[in-house]
Amino acid sequence: MKRIFKIASALFITLVTLNTSAQLKGLDLVKYVDPFIGAVGEGHTFPGATLPYGMVKLGPDVAPLNSNSGYLPQGNIRGFSHVHVSGTGGPPKYGNVLVAATSGDVNIKDFSTDRANEKSSPGYYTVQSTKYKLKSEFTVTHSVGFHRYTNTNKGNLNLFFDLGSFLSWGGYKEVGELDQELVGSEIKIVSATEIEGYTRVRGGWNVGEAYTVFFYAVLDKPANAYGTWKSGQIHEGSKEEFDSHEATGAYLTFDTAAATIQMKVGISYISAGKARQNVHIELAHWDFNRVKKAASDTWNKKLNSVIANTKNEDQKKIFYSALYRTMLMPVNRTNENPKWISKTPYYDDYYCIWDTYRATHPLLTLIQKKEQVAMINSLLDIYKNEGYMPDARSGNYTGRTQGGSNTDVLIADAYAKGLEGIDYHEGLNAMLKNAEVPPGGNERQYGRGGLSDYNTIGYVSTDFERAGSRTMEYAYNDFCIAMVAKGIGKDSLYKKYIKRSGNWENLWNAGIKSNGVSGFIWPRTRNGSWQGAWNVHKSEGWNGWLYEGNSWEYSLYVPHNVNGLIKKAGGNSAFIKRLDTFFTKNSQSFHAWLNDYYNVNNEPGFLTPTLYSYVGKPAKTNETVRKIIANNYNSNPDGLPGNDDAGSMSAWYVFNSIGFFPVAGQDLYLITSPMFDEIKLDLGEGKQLSIISKGLSQNNKYITSASLNGRPLNRSWFTHTEIKNGGTIIFQMAPVPSNWGTAILPPIIQ
Amino acid sequence: MKRIFKIASALFITLVTLNTSAQLKGLDLVKYVDPFIGAVGEGHTFPGATLPYGMVKLGPDVAPLNSNSGYLPQGNIRGFSHVHVSGTGGPPKYGNVLVAATSGDVNIKDFSTDRANEKSSPGYYTVQSTKYKLKSEFTVTHSVGFHRYTNTNKGNLNLFFDLGSFLSWGGYKEVGELDQELVGSEIKIVSATEIEGYTRVRGGWNVGEAYTVFFYAVLDKPANAYGTWKSGQIHEGSKEEFDSHEATGAYLTFDTAAATIQMKVGISYISAGKARQNVHIELAHWDFNRVKKAASDTWNKKLNSVIANTKNEDQKKIFYSALYRTMLMPVNRTNENPKWISKTPYYDDYYCIWDTYRATHPLLTLIQKKEQVAMINSLLDIYKNEGYMPDARSGNYTGRTQGGSNTDVLIADAYAKGLEGIDYHEGLNAMLKNAEVPPGGNERQYGRGGLSDYNTIGYVSTDFERAGSRTMEYAYNDFCIAMVAKGIGKDSLYKKYIKRSGNWENLWNAGIKSNGVSGFIWPRTRNGSWQGAWNVHKSEGWNGWLYEGNSWEYSLYVPHNVNGLIKKAGGNSAFIKRLDTFFTKNSQSFHAWLNDYYNVNNEPGFLTPTLYSYVGKPAKTNETVRKIIANNYNSNPDGLPGNDDAGSMSAWYVFNSIGFFPVAGQDLYLITSPMFDEIKLDLGEGKQLSIISKGLSQNNKYITSASLNGRPLNRSWFTHTEIKNGGTIIFQMAPVPSNWGTAILPPIIQ
Repeated sequence: MKRIFKIASALFITLVTLNTSAQLKGLDLVKYVDPFIGAVGEGHTFPGATLPYGMVKLGPDVAPLNSNSGYLPQGNIRGFSHVHVSGTGGPPKYGNVLVAATSGDVNIKDFSTDRANEKSSPGYYTVQSTKYKLKSEFTVTHSVGFHRYTNTNKGNLNLFFDLGSFLSWGGYKEVGELDQELVGSEIKIVSATEIEGYTRVRGGWNVGEAYTVFFYAVLDKPANAYGTWKSGQIHEGSKEEFDSHEATGAYLTFDTAAATIQMKVGISYISAGKARQNVHIELAHWDFNRVKKAASDTWNKKLNSVIANTKNEDQKKIFYSALYRTMLMPVNRTNENPKWISKTPYYDDYYCIWDTYRATHPLLTLIQKKEQVAMINSLLDIYKNEGYMPDARSGNYTGRTQGGSNTDVLIADAYAKGLEGIDYHEGLNAMLKNAEVPPGGNERQYGRGGLSDYNTIGYVSTDFERAGSRTMEYAYNDFCIAMVAKGIGKDSLYKKYIKRSGNWENLWNAGIKSNGVSGFIWPRTRNGSWQGAWNVHKSEGWNGWLYEGNSWEYSLYVPHNVNGLIKKAGGNSAFIKRLDTFFTKNSQSFHAWLNDYYNVNNEPGFLTPTLYSYVGKPAKTNETVRKIIANNYNSNPDGLPGNDDAGSMSAWYVFNSIGFFPVAGQDLYLITSPMFDEIKLDLGEGKQLSIISKGLSQNNKYITSASLNGRPLNRSWFTHTEIKNGGTIIFQMAPVPSNWGTAILPPIIQ
Repeated sequence: MKRIFKIASALFITLVTLNTSAQLKGLDLVKYVDPFIGAVGEGHTFPGATLPYGMVKLGPDVAPLNSNSGYLPQGNIRGFSHVHVSGTGGPPKYGNVLVAATSGDVNIKDFSTDRANEKSSPGYYTVQSTKYKLKSEFTVTHSVGFHRYTNTNKGNLNLFFDLGSFLSWGGYKEVGELDQELVGSEIKIVSATEIEGYTRVRGGWNVGEAYTVFFYAVLDKPANAYGTWKSGQIHEGSKEEFDSHEATGAYLTFDTAAATIQMKVGISYISAGKARQNVHIELAHWDFNRVKKAASDTWNKKLNSVIANTKNEDQKKIFYSALYRTMLMPVNRTNENPKWISKTPYYDDYYCIWDTYRATHPLLTLIQKKEQVAMINSLLDIYKNEGYMPDARSGNYTGRTQGGSNTDVLIADAYAKGLEGIDYHEGLNAMLKNAEVPPGGNERQYGRGGLSDYNTIGYVSTDFERAGSRTMEYAYNDFCIAMVAKGIGKDSLYKKYIKRSGNWENLWNAGIKSNGVSGFIWPRTRNGSWQGAWNVHKSEGWNGWLYEGNSWEYSLYVPHNVNGLIKKAGGNSAFIKRLDTFFTKNSQSFHAWLNDYYNVNNEPGFLTPTLYSYVGKPAKTNETVRKIIANNYNSNPDGLPGNDDAGSMSAWYVFNSIGFFPVAGQDLYLITSPMFDEIKLDLGEGKQLSIISKGLSQNNKYITSASLNGRPLNRSWFTHTEIKNGGTIIFQMAPVPSNWGTAILPPIIQ
């Protein structure tokens, strides 16, 4: 009888839930999102449950825990942890506060399980254990993971809380790199339904100092038995383990009557008390389905910022899954900063801005303006409190800088596009800090490594790692400083930095030839001479001369002076030939890799397909972008060209398939290759931008005419200023190019 | 009846205690220690209860909480907090986990009290409240404060736990400086006898990132009523306040029957659980007097490392109080490092090595060798984990560097004196990091600020703050590197650094004259020209050219090449005249201040009184040191010449009154002015060094002959090598100088 009553009341609750949150905001778009896209292969995307910019990212950690997202398509699930990142590479970060469920005997040495019926949708993840005959389900609020375990084997159910678990490569160490390692943990069973504690971990990709993830878990049924462990030693009936720099954990056991166990796990970077408060504030009830629905609704509302129409349902799936992934990171940790008090929003897991400044942030500026302003202010607040804006930040710790000081581009972009609510004078100060003060001791952590060279001889010499990519990016960063300085009336600063923005020329070696093309950037020693042996196709890592890109790619990265670049490269036809060769020599196979000339997975080339516009060949952009997308994106779990890089690959896709791409840092969009019949962007404040592509088809990939708000748009570009109050762009598509866009070339802003 | 029983059992416990720890180790020397010496005036010494290098420093915080030690001689006591430093200046640090007792109504707005019968002895502090008719007593173990409150008014007793209290100048802010400010706090009344929580604070003197002090308090009697508060809002009957970045607190109320309340407060930098564990491990009983006695015994054992004989009891008081103060800092926080796991000991509150390398650490090398080795290893472990050894560190955060990279001197000193258990190759790496890698962004935090100048033009130019003192100290630091490099067979490094150690000459301006003396170090611009207007008597702070010392002082700071300095200064007689002028122009008044030529309170001059030895005039050292001591040290609460600087002024006194002074970084001691008839140093491992001064008196201040282990010592110096296995030095004292020590001059080690 008791059992039947329980089922009845559960049904009742479900009905109530459906009633109270019946109507969706906007279209049902979450149905197009498949969180598994990119989760397999090199995409490293996180397929678990989370909200937009959500602090809790609750998902499976699959043995051997060496995955960046915790997820692997094969292998046993060790448990479900509450903090993850998405799409990253290098030594992994997070994977903290792991919970696992089993039935049968308590075995603290192994609570991993096989897996079946794995499913995921925005804000929800579920998997079943054949071994333990258990179903595990997870949904989330911003800071709380909601667990539901259904025991179908009528045996007992055990829950394990493992504070010694985290993602790692198993102790990887190189000079300047550090795998995650435990610093300490503590656990306390507060009552038969409550448990709290923390795990403290340091290292990982950004070689961060120790961060602490606190949790408070509350269950809907009391445990019948419990115990703790420390460093693998079980203590039955014990209620707590203090922090002696060891791995601790606890388990709770429930009797057979408890067919379903629900649990809320609040997470905090402040304290266990704050984690408990997060539960109290965000999740006052026990209705799992209601939370699941609310999470889905939250996502749906965000996804409705872009309405994309096409008959191709698979394309919608690719598109909305990509749009979804652009909102996984950074993470909003306002009120969760353990380092200082501020009224400014606090975001963590900028991972990293080198990846996201090119597409993700410009996308936010269009469809999530408030988030973009909040993020820029969070970066300025970090500058104010720590001395530098981060290029990458994770675990409340700034480091590493991959290339330039890319926050400069964010600020210039915001300024160029007129974002309000940002102190641009403070922004300029923060940019000048990057540009003038060498980061010292650890040149990978802050600002601009190799700055002492750059500011004296005009380029970063081979004495420093990543000297080539650094130089190219610093030049563009300097342009960004110049633009903001000019805008706020700092003329002498403008002059200084606009001059410095020409520094890329100092690495241009006209004598280098590759595949019929002449002139490439090339390694240069401190005394000014060119380095002898090197390879323009060489794409390298942290210790190399060019970071994640070869000289073909970086020799095309001068976003502020494409005309100057064209001149250096031998004029228009030489430049067209260069681009043609660049993209032709791109492997047409799926998952292009490092030895290809062009690689969509290398962010330095994000803008390159649009450069045809600068030589009056927008049709070549049309076809190139289509080809890249066709070859690199699909709706399979391995449907991304490489690491999603916190949504960067996804943002690239979103922009290009909408039909234009931003020149980050400038008031300029270059038209690419629209892939939807109609697409509507919600710019906020009731403003909407529609892009209508008439006659679009597989064959009709060329834009032959265009209009903006009813007036002809005889150019392959437009400005943010032109569309920021909304409007309509109409493209006429055709199977062969016209002379559209060949005459009025994109402006060189100086 | 109940009452009488309690008193009887208390007596019984006391008797047992006396029985079990009756016999002292060595002489009763704690009786000579007055912790109030230096606590009044500029000494800033901590007069509360602590153990040697003790983590808990439990003492009164006197309103308005702007004192560096928490203590002020006048004013109401706000409460008793558990973490302090001793002898420091600048914006204060710590003052965390404040407890206060009152009787009568609960008033969370004001629990401060007047004060009477304040007393302190090593490991014990007591004061009475007239207002509340309460007696408060405190003793300590390493990590636990033991409180005893005796209520003589028969009313109730209230205990307040204020986690929003800390020492500060009330919001002081300057560029690069930051007063302490709250980041958060949390409190939880766990049971009627237990309470725990933490306070998180950042800033203070070293502009540190947030540090967190956790506590766990357990009482010997249950509270009758309780409540909490947050940001001044009381919550009666509430048991917890979570961390919302606000000031929290809690109170407990006890009924009148509780005439005495005892409480143990464990402190930890790891967690509340670790704080509780610290209580369990260190303090398993409730016998206050036993703990007090153990603390006293611990101190006595440490003090017995020096047995000083004199009929002058006041001199013993000054001496042993000074010796006591040399062991207050740094603080041993092994197993309390929240940043990384290591088997190496962990010390914090190096505050700072610029102060302590000259006398304190060499003193440890003699009488606390194991501590010195542990500290150096802790510094190397910080280097390994954070990239640089600290010059100053507090709150688990490195910063600020006052002058040179003074850990270099510590390592060279240890190497020169043959300390075992240190990896000198790693030490050399850490020194080279200081010498070669500019600290960048914040040049006050790590390594050597202005290094880019120093390593290119051979001095720090006026472009940088503290350029003069930095240059002088870097030159000596380079000498230290050279010595270690030479020792471990790195010849080319030796050559490079021994050459660089001559860089002090680059600031020597032969044309500068002051009071008949020619040649001083002088500010120099980047292009090599001398700065025009300046003042050799100018002693400056963080933004000045010379830090805490004038050009008279720094122009005498070339410890590695005094002969070279003498030559620069015009030869022996000019140098003698220079020294005579330097010390004569010293104000003979107590508390010499910044415009005097010589100021014992400026560490750069610590070695200067001994420089007479280098020109064969040790008698002048004899008389100068006596004069300095007589004018600057006494047994009054304001009996120190200025900030004790973590015991530095005290260590200077200890060495000079023993009769010699170390040339830190070298295997060399210079004889000063013995002030005890006999003094015995326990060098450890059964080795003892005795210094016997025959015929010593007020008049007989000159050494006229000496012997070392029975052989004549016809020089005013000896080496560590000569005495490290113990021995006996005998001085013959007389009222007029002889020619002793005039011929064999101290060696110049290169």
